[in-house]
Amino acid sequence: MTRRPPLTPLAQSLPSTVPFVGPETQERAAGRPFRARLGANENGFGPSPRVIEAIGSAAHHVWKYGDPESSDLRAALASEHGVKPENIVVGEGIDGLLGLVARLYIEPGTPVVTSLGGYPTFNYHVAGFGGRLVTVPYAGDYENLEGLCEAAIAENAPLVYLSNPDNPMGTWWEAGEVQRFIESLPETSMLILDEAYGETAPASALPHFEPDRPNVLRMRTFSKAYALAGMRCGYVIGEPETIRAFDKIRNHFGMPGVTQAASLAALQDKAYLHKTLERVSACRDRLAAIAAANALTSIPSATNFVAIDCGGRATAEAVMQGLLERDVFVRKPATPGLDRCIRVSVGPDDEIDVFEAAFAEALAAAHNRR
Amino acid sequence: MTRRPPLTPLAQSLPSTVPFVGPETQERAAGRPFRARLGANENGFGPSPRVIEAIGSAAHHVWKYGDPESSDLRAALASEHGVKPENIVVGEGIDGLLGLVARLYIEPGTPVVTSLGGYPTFNYHVAGFGGRLVTVPYAGDYENLEGLCEAAIAENAPLVYLSNPDNPMGTWWEAGEVQRFIESLPETSMLILDEAYGETAPASALPHFEPDRPNVLRMRTFSKAYALAGMRCGYVIGEPETIRAFDKIRNHFGMPGVTQAASLAALQDKAYLHKTLERVSACRDRLAAIAAANALTSIPSATNFVAIDCGGRATAEAVMQGLLERDVFVRKPATPGLDRCIRVSVGPDDEIDVFEAAFAEALAAAHNRR
Repeated sequence: MTRRPPLTPLAQSLPSTVPFVGPETQERAAGRPFRARLGANENGFGPSPRVIEAIGSAAHHVWKYGDPESSDLRAALASEHGVKPENIVVGEGIDGLLGLVARLYIEPGTPVVTSLGGYPTFNYHVAGFGGRLVTVPYAGDYENLEGLCEAAIAENAPLVYLSNPDNPMGTWWEAGEVQRFIESLPETSMLILDEAYGETAPASALPHFEPDRPNVLRMRTFSKAYALAGMRCGYVIGEPETIRAFDKIRNHFGMPGVTQAASLAALQDKAYLHKTLERVSACRDRLAAIAAANALTSIPSATNFVAIDCGGRATAEAVMQGLLERDVFVRKPATPGLDRCIRVSVGPDDEIDVFEAAFAEALAAAHNRR
Repeated sequence: MTRRPPLTPLAQSLPSTVPFVGPETQERAAGRPFRARLGANENGFGPSPRVIEAIGSAAHHVWKYGDPESSDLRAALASEHGVKPENIVVGEGIDGLLGLVARLYIEPGTPVVTSLGGYPTFNYHVAGFGGRLVTVPYAGDYENLEGLCEAAIAENAPLVYLSNPDNPMGTWWEAGEVQRFIESLPETSMLILDEAYGETAPASALPHFEPDRPNVLRMRTFSKAYALAGMRCGYVIGEPETIRAFDKIRNHFGMPGVTQAASLAALQDKAYLHKTLERVSACRDRLAAIAAANALTSIPSATNFVAIDCGGRATAEAVMQGLLERDVFVRKPATPGLDRCIRVSVGPDDEIDVFEAAFAEALAAAHNRR
């Protein structure tokens, strides 16, 4: 047998894996494209026309490395949120930033608290640095704030993850509850508050920023409300000393200039964001109405997706498979209790039309199978 | 004093640093833009017009996450290099890929062999995972293949880094020498062969690919010859089992769709690449002629930059500062022996004109200061 350069024991122990299978992979397997792409909580309404313009202009400068400090974008974000540029680090989407946080705080065996059924990519990064996941079941369809806090204290966990609004259920806690949660955590537990869906949530769900609090990192993204998932731009707001720690390990020249320009243009087009949020809200209502028309309930959502309760795991699984067979891309939670639902992203009317018809068929097929 | 969530001891020990200060940071400090941007080995000739078009088209799809397998791009690269898609992983530039390799192979204390004065960003990633750098001085202006090999054997190092052509000196080894080096390394030493400047080198400097060899990772990029530094797209060619290891830790959705499309378009426009390579070659000759006209020698280069020998460290430092004061962005090596040079990237004629005039002035000022 050939001898090989040795991976670290940790790397050796990890599976070659992917937190999510990409829809392109499924399309290649099926040999045809999806008719509706509603599975990855992308924003099919698309970005502002000003973003498209900004990308076209920035394309002429792609020969330059992007500004490693993302200075213009950070200044605009600081102004937007009433904090300072030193409170902000920009990175390759929340996914990339979660990986950096995991690297800063996790050694093999470090306890990390999250919800059972919470964001798989966070768990992927925790495992990737050898962390020990401590999971707290949802309370109904809500992440369990009290349970997360108790686990953080019991484990003396340096990292605690909460998404608000929640993915995959779409539920949310009001700011007052989140703030009480923050204040109940040990000073030595860093809360990763993943607000990927912050813009689509009611303002009442978002606590005020506390730019000097050393144990909260708020994560935001241009992937959802701003429809820039394919550009990979997220950012963290936190206390300056913690934010500086990212400079110890980040890929300094990792942010493309095109991405910085697109994100800045997106941030500046408030009118378009407002229009998007109206579309998202209207589409959530339509998805709830489609569920109701099929005698099903849906979970009230503050995100750009709706979880539809199919009544049980087996039915939900059959419905999702039926939708995929009908070239409609959706996903579903895998965790007991949550797994009675399928998760459908908002999107343009024509794709929702396709979903509506396919959903009724898939439901009927699922029931006939029983 | 406030208690804080504890960074890992390794993270705590790292400085908040940046391997290179960005030219934008220097421009902000100076309060005015550079007149010539020739310091970061970017490609000021710019990308193919087809790349600009591809970016414009892809902009309409930025709401989608990029294909996490970079399937189309990997297929094209496999065809280009006569290997299989399973031999290739695409990532966020060579910088990002170097970070992943470091993570796969380095634990605190792991010995890693590189040249004294070699690529600082590689050293940054090695330090970031707690590796112990073992450095081998250059032999003249060449990376010392024999010395690197001896160090790898003596240290039983799982990682050895070589750039060919070399950065910062621009020198290169012929393929036969590189192949002998590869074959002399222990089976348990992984060679990172950084070929960022592979396209600008003579074909005779690039060994044949050995897609089943488990201890070589060849790194390429779209940042240099293809002028896409600001898009962050690099790739690694290696044996499939090693390539699969990247799937254990990479940010699977980290490659923007726009970047994948731009890189594919760049790869396909052979005529434009050919034109670029002619421009690079002509500009290297012009930079050498400028050095000669100032009674200085330059180091023969297979890259898109030229190291000009200013005769000594102090003069080179003064010349670089003089150029910066004259709004000409260049950099220089900091390592004794190499530090007698400044490093000037190729670029369009008008920027080289600016350099030429400022260089003569900076040289005269440096000599008057002595």
